[in-house]
Amino acid sequence: MNSKFIVIEGLEGAGKTTARDAIVATLRARGIHDLVFTREPGGTPLAEQLRVLVKQGIEGEQVTDKAELLMLYAARVQLVETVIKPALARGAWVIGDRHDLSSQAYQGGGRGLDAGLMQTLRDTVLGDFRPDLTLYLDVTPDIGLQRARARGELDRIEQESLRFFERTRARYLALAAEDPTIITIDATQSLGDVTASLQSALDGWLAEQA
Amino acid sequence: MNSKFIVIEGLEGAGKTTARDAIVATLRARGIHDLVFTREPGGTPLAEQLRVLVKQGIEGEQVTDKAELLMLYAARVQLVETVIKPALARGAWVIGDRHDLSSQAYQGGGRGLDAGLMQTLRDTVLGDFRPDLTLYLDVTPDIGLQRARARGELDRIEQESLRFFERTRARYLALAAEDPTIITIDATQSLGDVTASLQSALDGWLAEQA
Repeated sequence: MNSKFIVIEGLEGAGKTTARDAIVATLRARGIHDLVFTREPGGTPLAEQLRVLVKQGIEGEQVTDKAELLMLYAARVQLVETVIKPALARGAWVIGDRHDLSSQAYQGGGRGLDAGLMQTLRDTVLGDFRPDLTLYLDVTPDIGLQRARARGELDRIEQESLRFFERTRARYLALAAEDPTIITIDATQSLGDVTASLQSALDGWLAEQA
Repeated sequence: MNSKFIVIEGLEGAGKTTARDAIVATLRARGIHDLVFTREPGGTPLAEQLRVLVKQGIEGEQVTDKAELLMLYAARVQLVETVIKPALARGAWVIGDRHDLSSQAYQGGGRGLDAGLMQTLRDTVLGDFRPDLTLYLDVTPDIGLQRARARGELDRIEQESLRFFERTRARYLALAAEDPTIITIDATQSLGDVTASLQSALDGWLAEQA
């Protein structure tokens, strides 16, 4: 099977880290061991610097929505060109903790940035590069934020209002409904059930690719 | 007269700092004293952080052309929204050391990024916001770089090849030729003559606006 780019998506507290472990176990069981892990924003030294600017902002300065979006795309294109594409080209599988769908959901849905701007930016920056599969872990914002809070301090974006995360989730669900490469997993279940659903979905998808 | 956004453009070593002083003197002579100075990339705390990333790059990592361009636009939109537009709105004049034309010339001309990408990005990010006047100081790369070298160390962009700056200059000249808001000044003249040309051009423009 050709190498694939698989992305995990979802709100804060959706269980992305646990999901990653489940994906790794499923791939290894099929003999796929050459794995590269990325996270967004981040994943290269430059992109990690941009992650700090996006996540923490600047003391005393309001980061505008468009500047935030452009920093996210700067980090993304740097990661895609210097890490993801080379990894796929040499035959490794890439497991991404977030990718473009996060911008579509958070900046497009949550912040309400213009859909035309979002689509134009994605197409002009990334061309037709897309994940092969996205596993979207769907939680309600109240459950997700409760879990995220239990982990410790919240960053600039995690401190947004509940309404922001409701708009973000709604956009995730809408985009997942119209894109056959996105599988939605009910992540309000117990961790064990989420893992089982995820592995079953991934196994089914892998069987189709073989 | 309404407040205006006047931009100084040109290659390294074109004499932008001297030009700024000449512009300030000309405006003050007409009773215009409320001036705001910006530089790009930079001009806000966030944009200055992005300036460092663009100018110095990251040790051991090649910054991709698109990531560079997107960081420049992130810095630009932050500056436009939080500094330039508010200053113009309260009646101040804004004098910019570089603006969008630099990206068109350096990234579009010098790096050869696709013209469609450049135009789409400008239009989607900045809308129809444009400088009222751009004074483009035209020097040949050899003269400009000689002056820049005499000032000290060169940064990541200033270390590009002579061919890069020739492509950049050619794009500056081509864009200046088709845009009536750009005035080209021969900056290979002596400093005194450059200042005289600049002040004469600016005085003529101001007289037309009155």
